[in-house]
Amino acid sequence: MTKEEYMGVALSLAEATIGQTSPNPSVGAVLVKDGRIVGMGTHLKHGHEHAEVYAIRQAGKAARNSDLYVTLEPCSHHGKTPPCVDLIIKQNIRKVYVACTDPNPQVAGKGIERLRQSGIEVEVGIQETRARELNRKFFHFIQTNKPYVTLKVAMTLDGKTATADGDSKWITSKDARLDVHRERDIHDAILVGVNTILQDNPQLTTRLPQGGKHPIRIILDTNLRIPKYAQVLVDQQAPTWIFCGKNANADAFTKEYPYVRVFSLDSEQVELDAVLECLGEERIQSLYVEGGSTIHGQFVAEKLINECHWYIAPKLLGGADAISSVGGASPEKMSEALDLEFGSVKQIGSDLKVIARLKEAR
Amino acid sequence: MTKEEYMGVALSLAEATIGQTSPNPSVGAVLVKDGRIVGMGTHLKHGHEHAEVYAIRQAGKAARNSDLYVTLEPCSHHGKTPPCVDLIIKQNIRKVYVACTDPNPQVAGKGIERLRQSGIEVEVGIQETRARELNRKFFHFIQTNKPYVTLKVAMTLDGKTATADGDSKWITSKDARLDVHRERDIHDAILVGVNTILQDNPQLTTRLPQGGKHPIRIILDTNLRIPKYAQVLVDQQAPTWIFCGKNANADAFTKEYPYVRVFSLDSEQVELDAVLECLGEERIQSLYVEGGSTIHGQFVAEKLINECHWYIAPKLLGGADAISSVGGASPEKMSEALDLEFGSVKQIGSDLKVIARLKEAR
Repeated sequence: MTKEEYMGVALSLAEATIGQTSPNPSVGAVLVKDGRIVGMGTHLKHGHEHAEVYAIRQAGKAARNSDLYVTLEPCSHHGKTPPCVDLIIKQNIRKVYVACTDPNPQVAGKGIERLRQSGIEVEVGIQETRARELNRKFFHFIQTNKPYVTLKVAMTLDGKTATADGDSKWITSKDARLDVHRERDIHDAILVGVNTILQDNPQLTTRLPQGGKHPIRIILDTNLRIPKYAQVLVDQQAPTWIFCGKNANADAFTKEYPYVRVFSLDSEQVELDAVLECLGEERIQSLYVEGGSTIHGQFVAEKLINECHWYIAPKLLGGADAISSVGGASPEKMSEALDLEFGSVKQIGSDLKVIARLKEAR
Repeated sequence: MTKEEYMGVALSLAEATIGQTSPNPSVGAVLVKDGRIVGMGTHLKHGHEHAEVYAIRQAGKAARNSDLYVTLEPCSHHGKTPPCVDLIIKQNIRKVYVACTDPNPQVAGKGIERLRQSGIEVEVGIQETRARELNRKFFHFIQTNKPYVTLKVAMTLDGKTATADGDSKWITSKDARLDVHRERDIHDAILVGVNTILQDNPQLTTRLPQGGKHPIRIILDTNLRIPKYAQVLVDQQAPTWIFCGKNANADAFTKEYPYVRVFSLDSEQVELDAVLECLGEERIQSLYVEGGSTIHGQFVAEKLINECHWYIAPKLLGGADAISSVGGASPEKMSEALDLEFGSVKQIGSDLKVIARLKEAR
């Protein structure tokens, strides 16, 4: 196998854990000696051992003089676990192949430097694109202190999310709706506007056959209009956080719902950049925005998105008066539209899932 | 090669001529003797010889006792050319493989019957799906006497075709716009509403590097509001047909523009089914509808479409007030949306081209 192929194995290990390691990145490691894999490891969960530790543990004595392939620069600082570089040096690893450096300021090249200082050869950049893609949410968060924002829309081919009367059940197929639950499972938090609560009263939980993690449910509700019967208030299946403006009576609300966190902003309206800043402080790395139309319009107008997941149903609703996937106010010129790049397109059930990224973000 | 593979060759020949044989279908033929192809033929243009004739001509003496693979049932009637079945019988063809029968009432199984009566073995249905797909527009026309309608939209990912102010330049990439010219080239006619003329003043011609055929330009214009400066009136590059309501002064218009055909309908409004009936009488087999939003809304509401070509640009415009890809009035329930099935999705330049068909139509 080539070095790219060995790194590919390590990347596959890491990719399998996307969404379950937050706030840590997903990392995989492979140890190779005399053309044989002698150890493999993956970081599984925050607080657990790092990928390198598992790989070295599996290799046992074979670790000595082996080559390490690791998808992210090994850590050099004491976190919840001791620094991996110390272990690598101690185990007399011959050469370390790194897919990409860690943008975390506590690591940021220091790990590689320490290895080189102790005489270990280090090669950086093997399958770097795939490695950066894998941890794009983590990288974004580390670099901006704000969550990576994914806008999710389920619409008809002609761009509608509901009829003029607000009926939206169901636009997409069961398979597509199941895929949305897979996405909720791998996001730290999910965000909707209070209108979506009033219109659909959703649970906003992860409901997968094999189980899954509920994201934190975030509601933007300037005047705390959320009704008593709202599932996100009633069911206590997952944490609910509400952002309101400064004129809302947050104290009274908190007394009534002590298990709901209320973030009372300084402004009259709920400003999105203040929300994202707040969420960053709470170490929310990934945010899944599920609408509705007006909220999407705000995210697009303020250019606060990183990625789009567009589920498109093979249907034409028609109607200049129907609800549009992205609402708000139109810019004056088409050239002012937010530029994206298409990533993947796949068919899920009878629907398409189109993934696009912000053009500047790549 | 298998019989499916030989038929595949014949289908490839036919597919290369899509759009240039109207009002005839595209047909390919292959003659095989002792496992060798001895003749190939394609119908190129209305009035020219049929595919079987070219194949037999190329085979010469080798035609005798060979097997014929033909994508459509050979004709048995005297049209612009003599019946192909007579030639096949005269040439002592051993066996005829037919992809699909001809729905044309002048043929409709009679060709196959004649061959069998004269002792030639006939096998029908080899690669039938691909053969029906190839000539779907022709088949639709023959069976309904109305053109096959393709709705074309170029929109942002969020379903907008223009800003609230009507600006739409440019939604899609040059490559996608070139693809639209390829589609115009293979359609008999192109249709827009007068608002599109007033808004964009398009030429509605085929502009391809290798040349191409201009479709007939059809304008729906209830009150003959089309302005004097309209390119479709001025340039005389292609025929322009205008449909108006009964209260418009068609006579005065015709005096001013004698080279424009005006269809004055019996109704006050321009009713789409009357337009399609008229176009059917004029032997327009394929109609490419290029908008705008209101026209699209009418076609969708009246369920008068067969196929959709959706060019989706990697852009989010936003705006509940922006122009939607399909306008008109929204139905009350999402379940009333027009059901389609996705066919192909491909990337053209930076855009996606999504092809969908009416679900019932397949």
